[in-house]
Amino acid sequence: MTTQLTDEHTSIRTYVQDLRRRVEGIEILEPGTGTTRYSHDAATAKTAADSGNLGPAVVLPATAAQVQEAVKVAAELGVTVVPRGAGTGLSGGATAQPSEVVISTEKLTAIIEVSPLDEVAVVEPGVINADLNKHLEPFGLFYAPDPASFDISSIGGNIATNAGGLRCAKYGVTRESILSLDVVLADGSLITVGHRSIKGVTGLDLTSLFVGSEGILGIVIKATVRLRPIPVARKTVSAFFNSTAEGTDGLAAITLSPVRPAAIEFFDTPSLANIDAHSGTNLRDRGAALILIEIDGYGIGDQAADLATALSAAGGRVTVESDDDGLRLWELRRSGRGLPQDKWYIGEDIAVPKSQLPKVYAAFPALEARFGVDISAVSHAGDGNLHPLITKDKTPDDGTNPPASLLEAATELVKVALSLGGTVTGEHGVGTIKREWAALELSERSREVQHAIKAAIDPQQTLNPGKAI
Amino acid sequence: MTTQLTDEHTSIRTYVQDLRRRVEGIEILEPGTGTTRYSHDAATAKTAADSGNLGPAVVLPATAAQVQEAVKVAAELGVTVVPRGAGTGLSGGATAQPSEVVISTEKLTAIIEVSPLDEVAVVEPGVINADLNKHLEPFGLFYAPDPASFDISSIGGNIATNAGGLRCAKYGVTRESILSLDVVLADGSLITVGHRSIKGVTGLDLTSLFVGSEGILGIVIKATVRLRPIPVARKTVSAFFNSTAEGTDGLAAITLSPVRPAAIEFFDTPSLANIDAHSGTNLRDRGAALILIEIDGYGIGDQAADLATALSAAGGRVTVESDDDGLRLWELRRSGRGLPQDKWYIGEDIAVPKSQLPKVYAAFPALEARFGVDISAVSHAGDGNLHPLITKDKTPDDGTNPPASLLEAATELVKVALSLGGTVTGEHGVGTIKREWAALELSERSREVQHAIKAAIDPQQTLNPGKAI
Repeated sequence: MTTQLTDEHTSIRTYVQDLRRRVEGIEILEPGTGTTRYSHDAATAKTAADSGNLGPAVVLPATAAQVQEAVKVAAELGVTVVPRGAGTGLSGGATAQPSEVVISTEKLTAIIEVSPLDEVAVVEPGVINADLNKHLEPFGLFYAPDPASFDISSIGGNIATNAGGLRCAKYGVTRESILSLDVVLADGSLITVGHRSIKGVTGLDLTSLFVGSEGILGIVIKATVRLRPIPVARKTVSAFFNSTAEGTDGLAAITLSPVRPAAIEFFDTPSLANIDAHSGTNLRDRGAALILIEIDGYGIGDQAADLATALSAAGGRVTVESDDDGLRLWELRRSGRGLPQDKWYIGEDIAVPKSQLPKVYAAFPALEARFGVDISAVSHAGDGNLHPLITKDKTPDDGTNPPASLLEAATELVKVALSLGGTVTGEHGVGTIKREWAALELSERSREVQHAIKAAIDPQQTLNPGKAI
Repeated sequence: MTTQLTDEHTSIRTYVQDLRRRVEGIEILEPGTGTTRYSHDAATAKTAADSGNLGPAVVLPATAAQVQEAVKVAAELGVTVVPRGAGTGLSGGATAQPSEVVISTEKLTAIIEVSPLDEVAVVEPGVINADLNKHLEPFGLFYAPDPASFDISSIGGNIATNAGGLRCAKYGVTRESILSLDVVLADGSLITVGHRSIKGVTGLDLTSLFVGSEGILGIVIKATVRLRPIPVARKTVSAFFNSTAEGTDGLAAITLSPVRPAAIEFFDTPSLANIDAHSGTNLRDRGAALILIEIDGYGIGDQAADLATALSAAGGRVTVESDDDGLRLWELRRSGRGLPQDKWYIGEDIAVPKSQLPKVYAAFPALEARFGVDISAVSHAGDGNLHPLITKDKTPDDGTNPPASLLEAATELVKVALSLGGTVTGEHGVGTIKREWAALELSERSREVQHAIKAAIDPQQTLNPGKAI
C-alpha cells in the first residue's frame, strides 16, 4: 500500500514538474493534505473527511490554453484527469484520488458577452449560476436552469451534470439552454460544437452529447447559453390538501388544465413538518400536503383563476399568495428544511413519468416498515422528479458506517421508480455513487454503446475514468 | 460498369433471398425500375428521374423484429442499409443506390398510446406528423414540431433530421419534444434510450445523439414524444414595412419586447411578390416586407398590444388579424409561394444568430450582381433560420444541368452565413447535398470526433454510409 502510494506520487509529481516547466506561471496545488477538499464533491465529502484522504494535484488554469496544456501533459504521462466545477455535485462525479490531477475551472469566471439581440450569453465555465443571473438582470434577461445549488454551483458543473432545478417544468433542463460549447478533448485539442444560432443541424449533435457527460468526454471551457426575457409577471399559488395522497392526486388537475406553471413543487406531510420544525413556520396548520406553484408571463390573473378552479375541484385549499408570502414560501422550499444530522440519511433523486408520482409516494409506507426507515420527499412535480430523504435513527450498536438497511431501502426505492417507467437519477447524475443503479436501468447493449462512445472520444481513458457510465 | 452492376445485383439478390427465407411474410420490393422512387428524397428526385436510375431493394417491415432482422442480414452480408421515413427530406439523406437496401418505416404507423397525464404519445416512426396532431386534438393536446412538410413527413423522418418548423421559436425543435426512443442498431440489436419521465440523466444522452443523426447511427422504431396543451388562445399579428431592410430591422423590436410568439416569419419584397403572383393576393399593396406573427396562450390581448407598440415604434404597420384573415396568411406562408419551374433554382436552409438576419438579407444584392442570379428569402426569423431561394433564368445555351454560377452563388451565401456565426443547415440536415458545406463549418478535429462516434456505433459502416458527416 505504501509502495503504491509512493509510485502514484512519483507519477503525479512528474506531472506537476512537467506542467510547470511547459506553462510558465500556471497555478498548481501540490498533492497532499492541502488539497483534500478537491478529493470529493458534496456527496462524498463525509467519506473523504472520515478517511483522512490526501488530496490530488490540482491545476487552476486561467486560460483555455492552460486547460489544453494541462490535459495534454496528463495524456502524455498517462495521468488521469478529474474535471471539476464548483464541487457542489451530489453523485461523486468529481471524486479524485491522490494519484489523479484535478483540473478545476474555478478561475475561469468571465462573462464574456451578453447579447440581448441574440438572447445569448457567452460565459466561462467557472461563472456561478446566480452571478450570471445577477449580471443579466439589468438586461431584463435570465438564464433559466436553476438547480437548488444555484448560489454556489457553476455553469460548467451545471452543464456537466445537465442540471435541472425548479423552473425546468416550463423552461427545460440545462441542455435546452446550451447552444454552443468550446470543449477541450482528452488529447488536449479544442473543438467548438453547436451554434450561436438557435437552430443548426450540421452533423451529429455533439453539444447535447457533452451536456450531462460528467467530464468523461471533455472539459467545457466556454459556453454560449440561451437567455429569456424576464416574465412580465410572476405569481405564487399554493394548494394545501388533507393528506399526501390527496395532494399527489391533485397534481393531475394541473396537468389537465391549460396552465403550464414555471415551477410545481410538491411537499408531503413529513416534509411540511420538517420545515415547520426547522424554520418555525406553521405550514402543517394549513394542511398535510402542499403543491406550491409559480406561474409567470401574460394573463397572470386568468392563469391563477384557471389553476384555482382546477385545484379546488381536486380538493385543494387554494391561495393566490401575496408577493411577500410567495417569496417566503419559495425560500422555505429552497432552504427551509433541515437535514437530520442526528440520524443516518440518504438524499435521493429519482424521476418517474409524472402520472406515476402518487404511486411512488404510496410505496413509502411499505418500504418504511420493511427497512425500519422513514421516507419523505419533496418533488419537482412538474417533471416527476422526486428528492426522497431516507432516514434511520442511530443506535449505540451502529459503527461509523450507516446500517446496510438504509442503502437497501434506497435501492428498493430506485427499483420502484424503474418499475414505474422512471430513472435512477433525474438531475444529479450518476457519478460514482449511482453506477450500480444505472446498470439496473440501462440494458447491457445500451451500456456497451455508452462505453464505445467514451472509448472513441477518449481512447486512453484520460478523463474522469470510472464515472458516469 | 455492367459487371459492377451485376455484382451489386447478385449481392442484393442474395440479401432479398436470405431475408425472405428468415422472415416469413416480410414485405420486400425487388430492386429495379419498380423501386425508383425509393432511390431519392425530395431533394434528389429530379436527378434520379433524369438519370433513369434503377431503384434499390426495399424492405417494408411491419414489426420491430422485422426491422431488426432486415438490418442483421444486411450486416452479415455486408450490404449497406438506407433508412427511410416518408422520403420528404430536402438534403439527399435517403438517397439509395441499386446496390443498397432501403428499410422504409412507412408501414409502422401505429399511434400506440396517448397519455394526457404524462403528456406523452408513444408512436411508431411511420406516423405522419399531421396525423398525430389530428389524433391528439380530441385530447386537447398537440405535438409541437411542425416542419413545412407536416402533412406528408413522418415522425421518424422528423426525428432523423431533428426537424424544425414554424413553431420552434417558442416550442423548440424536434429534439426538445423527444423523450425516449427504441432504436435498432447496425448489428440488428435493439436498445431503448431516454426516459418516459421528463427528466433523466442516467449516462450519456443517447436520445439527443440519435435525434438528427440522419439514419447513420440507428433506425428509430418507436418514439415517446412530449405533448403540450393546445393554447387557450391564438392570434395572428402582421407588421408590414416599406422595405426589406426596414422589415429585418423591425425584428429586433420583437426580441427586445417581453412577448415570445409561437412563430415569427419574415417575408422580403420578392417573396411577397411571389405570393401575389402565385396566389392572386395583393400583399405588396400593404407593404414591401412582412413580419407575420402567431402569439398564443394567456393574456393574448396584452401580448398583441405590447407587440403592436414595439413594432409600430420600429416603423411597422401593425394589424391584429381576424381569425379568418390570420388563417389565410398562414396558408399563404405554407403553400402560397410558387417554385419557378421555368427557371433554374436552389432552395437553401441557412441559419444565423438572429441579430444577424439583416446582414444576410443585405448581402443578397451583391451576390445577385456577382453571379447573375435572383435571391429572395422567407425566414423563420424567431430563430434566425432563412430559406433563400436562388433562381437564374434559363438560356438556350444551358445543358440539362444547372449553370455552375447557381451553385457558386449558394456556396457564397453559405459562407456569408458562416462568417456571421451561422450554420449551413438550420433544419434540413446535411444528407448528401451539404457534406462539402459542412466541412466549411466544422473543424477537422470536430469531424474526426463525429466519424469516431459513427465508427464506434456502426463499425462496419452498415447504416447510411456517406451521409450526414
